[in-house]
Amino acid sequence: MGYLIHGAMVLSAQAPYSFSQKDVLVSDAGLIENVAPSISPPSSCGQIDASGHVLLPGLVNAHTHAAMSLLRGVGDDLHLNEWLQKDVWPREKRMDEKTIETGTKLALCEMVRSGITCFNDMYFHMDAAARAVQQSGMRAVLGYGMIDMGDFGGKGRKELAIAGKFAEKISRQNNPLITSSICPHATHTCSAELLQESAKLARKLKLPLHIHAAETRKETADVLAKTKKESGRALRPIEFLDSCGCLSSRTILAHGVYASKSEVLLMARRSSSLAHCPVSNLKLAGGGAAPVPEYAQAGVNLSIGTDGAASNNSLNLFESMKAGAIEQKNFRFDAAAVKADDYLRMGTEGGAKALGIKTGKIGKGYLADIVLLDAKSPNLVPFTNNAGWLVYAAGPQNVTDVMANGKWLMRGRKLLTLDEEKIIESAQKAADRLG
Amino acid sequence: MGYLIHGAMVLSAQAPYSFSQKDVLVSDAGLIENVAPSISPPSSCGQIDASGHVLLPGLVNAHTHAAMSLLRGVGDDLHLNEWLQKDVWPREKRMDEKTIETGTKLALCEMVRSGITCFNDMYFHMDAAARAVQQSGMRAVLGYGMIDMGDFGGKGRKELAIAGKFAEKISRQNNPLITSSICPHATHTCSAELLQESAKLARKLKLPLHIHAAETRKETADVLAKTKKESGRALRPIEFLDSCGCLSSRTILAHGVYASKSEVLLMARRSSSLAHCPVSNLKLAGGGAAPVPEYAQAGVNLSIGTDGAASNNSLNLFESMKAGAIEQKNFRFDAAAVKADDYLRMGTEGGAKALGIKTGKIGKGYLADIVLLDAKSPNLVPFTNNAGWLVYAAGPQNVTDVMANGKWLMRGRKLLTLDEEKIIESAQKAADRLG
Repeated sequence: MGYLIHGAMVLSAQAPYSFSQKDVLVSDAGLIENVAPSISPPSSCGQIDASGHVLLPGLVNAHTHAAMSLLRGVGDDLHLNEWLQKDVWPREKRMDEKTIETGTKLALCEMVRSGITCFNDMYFHMDAAARAVQQSGMRAVLGYGMIDMGDFGGKGRKELAIAGKFAEKISRQNNPLITSSICPHATHTCSAELLQESAKLARKLKLPLHIHAAETRKETADVLAKTKKESGRALRPIEFLDSCGCLSSRTILAHGVYASKSEVLLMARRSSSLAHCPVSNLKLAGGGAAPVPEYAQAGVNLSIGTDGAASNNSLNLFESMKAGAIEQKNFRFDAAAVKADDYLRMGTEGGAKALGIKTGKIGKGYLADIVLLDAKSPNLVPFTNNAGWLVYAAGPQNVTDVMANGKWLMRGRKLLTLDEEKIIESAQKAADRLG
Repeated sequence: MGYLIHGAMVLSAQAPYSFSQKDVLVSDAGLIENVAPSISPPSSCGQIDASGHVLLPGLVNAHTHAAMSLLRGVGDDLHLNEWLQKDVWPREKRMDEKTIETGTKLALCEMVRSGITCFNDMYFHMDAAARAVQQSGMRAVLGYGMIDMGDFGGKGRKELAIAGKFAEKISRQNNPLITSSICPHATHTCSAELLQESAKLARKLKLPLHIHAAETRKETADVLAKTKKESGRALRPIEFLDSCGCLSSRTILAHGVYASKSEVLLMARRSSSLAHCPVSNLKLAGGGAAPVPEYAQAGVNLSIGTDGAASNNSLNLFESMKAGAIEQKNFRFDAAAVKADDYLRMGTEGGAKALGIKTGKIGKGYLADIVLLDAKSPNLVPFTNNAGWLVYAAGPQNVTDVMANGKWLMRGRKLLTLDEEKIIESAQKAADRLG
């Protein structure tokens, strides 16, 4: 059964964004079939009265580690290395398939409630993550995060086999909502061989390559030293990735804070996408700010992610859009350095483009990933009919209804595909077991 | 009728904060009468089951301009002077008493929904603001913002008369919820005489003195130049305030971003409070970051405010606490530079101390300003029983019940004292009229 959603103020397909009253027809097959001022309902079509609401494309969380929701609040206010070594890694070692499924489900509940319909995930035990996503009806790109710490022969090969096997399995399942990616973890945790082989595998399977890079100064120094030692030529993280063949139009590079001007231009030449993660970067105190205006000027496709709840501690893309925009303004001493339109684009069509998925816009032929917000909420009044209205003031409290691929995941703030109460109970127990 | 609130996890009275299950008895007179693991209900006492919830003191918004909610989203992404001159000031000129009442009510709806029970307001047509606050049952410190742009004889005296008259009227009303303050607007918009007379008036009436200072670099340069010209001695903004007698234990200084080390120490010597406004500072792109660790180390009492919705664009203190904390960490390249405890203290007891009001703690003898959050929300799981759990993950979506002075303002997410639907409608119309 399709749906005709009546009377909402619908986000325009392009920036500068605005809203206008339109009907949206969603087909049985999960596509947006028509968007017009007034559409007559076809027979056997559910009719939804969305007056008083705004209608957006579902937000795209371009970089996260969903199951890390179980590590939310673990080791807050600690220095990065202390946090990883004392709090994160020991707990991750104790995470089994069941734990990952539970943690992923917890994250899915939070993301749906925040208006996210699609996310780009990198973690481990990804079969369990895929099961959780499948049950939820959300859209996701899932990838196994490979780490060999320089030991390709002993460890890297095995990691590559796990990642390839998972990707092929997802591909065979032919689920319209779940695709996979190849995820070498980061520039400083993967050997050059693992990066090279990852790039080959992604090319062969025509899959996105999703990686952390240029997140911290320490990483920059480490990669410069490592490349100098191994090849005689010191390369910065993004240059190093390119030397391994990892930059292409299917690359999603998470963070990109410490990118030089020439690395920004390199990303643009390779048509790679950035997944900007401002809240995580701020909280982990990486320092500085991603060169967002430079990426934009160079023509790099920009998307935005929450990162995992261990470092954020929320999976709230409204918060990330606002935090990112105001951080950039302040960092540049320039209120006009970035605009609300830029950030709303990152959270919608920018994310969709990064992942190569036809979502992120309300337009004919796009996937029916749709979010309704109650515009009659005091924090959203007055309605100024622009991107700032959404980016600087909206939050999860305003999200009432969420649809992915033409199916409702939430109606009237009630989750329909996920048993929230049970998930919360299991998640608390799972977190307690991790210690 | 008093209330016995059963079974919530109650925030501890001191940092490092934690929660423990306690009953809270609220008296008829609006005070917290007892906090203990188990309290037998006295006769004729409303019993509230708050299991599954956490119970906090109501948040204290230490600096705002409530009625500016009508200017939310006006002139986003513009440079400060362009924003003020093209968008803010022309609209403010068109604001009459009725507009201010409507705008204040809109802000009250949003603040209650965000768990704020007390706020420190500076604006104009304050009689209208007081009417709105009285109807809402919220707690507020209200002050008329005085500006003479250097013309004390022609303008400053009149401003002082308006401010004094309003303060005395509020004092005569003897409302337990509404008090007033003396508000010379800022260091660069007030003459030295107006500042001196404001300080005298605040001392005479024993009222808080609430002022903007050290918000931008331009202000610093302007005050240095002005003082050099007028007195032969260049003074920085906070030094200038002190020279006018404006720094005392009743002073709430909003912003304080561009404070020198000696000004931080001066604030501490005078026992003045800072109202830190990180989201507004970031969005207006003032640059840099307030020296929060230095204020803390010097012993300055720290509180936190949203500022007005024109520059924020939310009245969400959860957001301000998180944004402030993560901004500080990143600015210092140090995840341990500030802690969640520091920011939760600012939003509760720090704000209460700044305003001289016995709220901000759940303890016997404190005012019954209380907020309940639904802890069984996916964004708040797992429960880690520390300040970070609240500061880094909670939001307005989690606030279910709000009490001020022993009376419920919201129950089960429904506002009880404010006609939200009608206010939203009037506010939209009022904003449309402002243009």
